[in-house]
Amino acid sequence: MAANTRFAVAIHAMGMLAFGDELNVTSDDIAKSIRTNPVVVRRLLAQLTRWGLVAVKQGAGGGARLTRPPAQITLSDIYLALGEGPLFQVPLLSETHECAVGRSVGPVLTGILLRAEKGLLAELQAVTLSDVIGKVMRRMKKQGCARDAPGAARARKKNDD
Amino acid sequence: MAANTRFAVAIHAMGMLAFGDELNVTSDDIAKSIRTNPVVVRRLLAQLTRWGLVAVKQGAGGGARLTRPPAQITLSDIYLALGEGPLFQVPLLSETHECAVGRSVGPVLTGILLRAEKGLLAELQAVTLSDVIGKVMRRMKKQGCARDAPGAARARKKNDD
Repeated sequence: MAANTRFAVAIHAMGMLAFGDELNVTSDDIAKSIRTNPVVVRRLLAQLTRWGLVAVKQGAGGGARLTRPPAQITLSDIYLALGEGPLFQVPLLSETHECAVGRSVGPVLTGILLRAEKGLLAELQAVTLSDVIGKVMRRMKKQGCARDAPGAARARKKNDD
Repeated sequence: MAANTRFAVAIHAMGMLAFGDELNVTSDDIAKSIRTNPVVVRRLLAQLTRWGLVAVKQGAGGGARLTRPPAQITLSDIYLALGEGPLFQVPLLSETHECAVGRSVGPVLTGILLRAEKGLLAELQAVTLSDVIGKVMRRMKKQGCARDAPGAARARKKNDD
């Protein structure tokens, strides 16, 4: 199974959109920050929009914005929005499989593996986008680069005025 | 992300090997039961052997066998044996990324996503191969096909002798 990078890219993009109004974040800004193609980002934003996590306003001053505050968006919301489907798939054995074991293994494994995936979702549900942003900010502060934080430039400008 | 069928196939194969001595299960039997190619099964068994969950004896009366009782093998042992690596990958942003946010997001997201994956592993660790076999047996019994259970044919033969 190829490791999934879309999820991390989506969290990164949503994290940037949390500062959308303040910094007027565009999909090109996001693509540059993740070092990926803007088309990839626009496709991802379209997907998040269909799921209702992001709204896109057209025209000047428009762009993609979160539809609710980052404290009300969990990582499981984002995970589910990507619509990856179940992590594990159980090869479907026909109901008429000649082997009684074969017929029974499928439904049993499907149940067990879906329950395991719920363990993953429970962890993701415990973390909000706001938690992620907070951790990133604290890490930046520790490394002495708080001056580069989103909004910091504007805040400095305001103080200078 | 493509759903992973290897995991379900590996659990199915290990479940059959739990009856290996009794029924002299071969990789061809497993492949037939899962309706897949024997080469796929042999590759999978080689992987499980490298991880020490399965041992292959050569020669007559040989074949693949579990190295410990199914009650001592958890689904997380099997999952880890498949060596799929992390579920989610965080695009690595260079340490010298011009954006301080970009530099901090990577390590923060990696930590959060690894923790989420641990939620999945915890669920898998709570289920043994023996639990899976028990569930399959109970389901077969409910459907009135217990006579087809592994070992049932031999048991009937013994009673007939």
